[in-house]
Amino acid sequence: MSLVDLSREILPAIEDELKKSLAHPLITDYSLYDMLTYHMGWTGEGAGAQVTGKRIRPLLTILSTMAAGGEWKIALPAAACVELIHNFSLIHDDIQDGSQTRHGRKTVWLKWGEAHAINAGDLMFTLGLACLNRLKDACSDDIVIQAQSILQETCVSLTKGQYLDMVLERAKESTLEDYWVMISGKTGALLAASTQLGALCAGSDQNTQIIFKNYGLNLGLAFQVWDDWLGIWGDAVKTGKSTSSDLISGKKTYPVIYGLSQNGKFATRWRKGPIPLEEVEQIEKYLQEDGAEEATLTKAKELSSEALSALNLASSELPAYQALVELTNSLFHRQR
Amino acid sequence: MSLVDLSREILPAIEDELKKSLAHPLITDYSLYDMLTYHMGWTGEGAGAQVTGKRIRPLLTILSTMAAGGEWKIALPAAACVELIHNFSLIHDDIQDGSQTRHGRKTVWLKWGEAHAINAGDLMFTLGLACLNRLKDACSDDIVIQAQSILQETCVSLTKGQYLDMVLERAKESTLEDYWVMISGKTGALLAASTQLGALCAGSDQNTQIIFKNYGLNLGLAFQVWDDWLGIWGDAVKTGKSTSSDLISGKKTYPVIYGLSQNGKFATRWRKGPIPLEEVEQIEKYLQEDGAEEATLTKAKELSSEALSALNLASSELPAYQALVELTNSLFHRQR
Repeated sequence: MSLVDLSREILPAIEDELKKSLAHPLITDYSLYDMLTYHMGWTGEGAGAQVTGKRIRPLLTILSTMAAGGEWKIALPAAACVELIHNFSLIHDDIQDGSQTRHGRKTVWLKWGEAHAINAGDLMFTLGLACLNRLKDACSDDIVIQAQSILQETCVSLTKGQYLDMVLERAKESTLEDYWVMISGKTGALLAASTQLGALCAGSDQNTQIIFKNYGLNLGLAFQVWDDWLGIWGDAVKTGKSTSSDLISGKKTYPVIYGLSQNGKFATRWRKGPIPLEEVEQIEKYLQEDGAEEATLTKAKELSSEALSALNLASSELPAYQALVELTNSLFHRQR
Repeated sequence: MSLVDLSREILPAIEDELKKSLAHPLITDYSLYDMLTYHMGWTGEGAGAQVTGKRIRPLLTILSTMAAGGEWKIALPAAACVELIHNFSLIHDDIQDGSQTRHGRKTVWLKWGEAHAINAGDLMFTLGLACLNRLKDACSDDIVIQAQSILQETCVSLTKGQYLDMVLERAKESTLEDYWVMISGKTGALLAASTQLGALCAGSDQNTQIIFKNYGLNLGLAFQVWDDWLGIWGDAVKTGKSTSSDLISGKKTYPVIYGLSQNGKFATRWRKGPIPLEEVEQIEKYLQEDGAEEATLTKAKELSSEALSALNLASSELPAYQALVELTNSLFHRQR
């Protein structure tokens, strides 16, 4: 079965599980609940499938359970958990970054104010973790506790990554070492948890869990490095929308940090100050000449191969394995 | 043994457990960690025992474990958990309220900015919940999962209470029904969890746990109603510092809501608009004439008696029972 076929069956089940997870009887009568359902893309202006996000993390959990030979429905609470943790972090990120829109809609803080958005994020966090207790219906107590522990460690990494992201944003320069620690926390940790939890729910042993975890982690890192490439050389940037180039915002992405480490034309120019729109094309060329584009693509491919090797090592069930390979590859052919 | 004697043994053990809980190897090298230790009163300007807070919640957990006939050291991770959850909520509350000081020191958001404070609160939340996994060393898996579940429900109540507090603050009037729901979440839920977890760690059955939970809940409600009384008739307000009267800030406390429900002189005046300093004394008298002070004191005593009855019903171990009675009473003789 292809990724599309499997998704057709799995995604609606994930959406149901998410809805069940948020509809806590203590809160459904209050507009606090509306903040959560609005953020998830289910209610309010502009609600609909086009704004719910791709649900990549819960899909990874479910497919990992299948690939590890487990019954996928057992993993639904774990899948809901990782998606809610992701969304709690988005609600708080939007406040931290002052982002006014997400999927083209007002962010929670812009609609209800920062104080309510902080609180709504805290509630989403709690309800996300609470999902794992529902694993009890089909898994042993030991698996439930392992799942809680994996998620708690992940959230420590997430907040550490978020902290470093805020620190690096204000720093003049940054090292690749900082970069890896930052994206391992901010992007890698939750993808790693998604795939590890999938294996855990299938009853996999520690070794297999770690291999699935490595698959998710490398996938997350590759995803981020590719995202960094897109931010400078992607279609959206190249086809006239170069105002959205990461070079203008001054973001410390992989190509920028690599470029700085080369101390070539790019580094000399970058250190002189902000880059205006009219200079973007020239700076891109400097980055290419200094080998940064090639290094970025090479690194993304390397990480993606590592992800696929881990997957190959651990998968026991063919259709889910193929779907995960397809999902992994699709993340590297996306142009946005 | 008196409360003082027991506290002398227990409080340092709690403080050690809290320090252990926050010193996660992933974060100790970063200033993110300093935000947590600063907030706890251990590091930074003005650090010291006078600013750490009274640690009432973890003390309740430990004494409840003893009172339920358990070995108190087993409950230390649960005690650390409730204190860290309390402190995570304080870090976020301070942002939400725009409070600039706590225990006379700059709040985390004022020192590091709102974005970092949101993130530090999220981390404290995670590390608080993670404590419960350490219960595994001495308790069954089932107890660990029950503890996680109690805490998650508590955090749903906490965020609901916080939501209602923000909504009521802006509302013109409010009902006692709203008031009870609000303080049950904001103050009651975590005290209820503190005492219930104590009983759980002692291996108590569901019935005994519920009685301990009721003790904590009623204690929390009584504490809040008494706090409301202090905010109008307390020494700090009476002895010249009446600028701090809750009547000036317009807070919807128990006496105010009760007074409004009487539709007497107080309600008529309150509905005309904000109360300036020079009117405070007169409005206090209106409240007394309308029966609001008596109703407040009666309610606080009633709740406190209910708390003590629950305690009396469930305690099996004398010195801890006496210490809890002492602690309960001391909360109602405090003048600030």
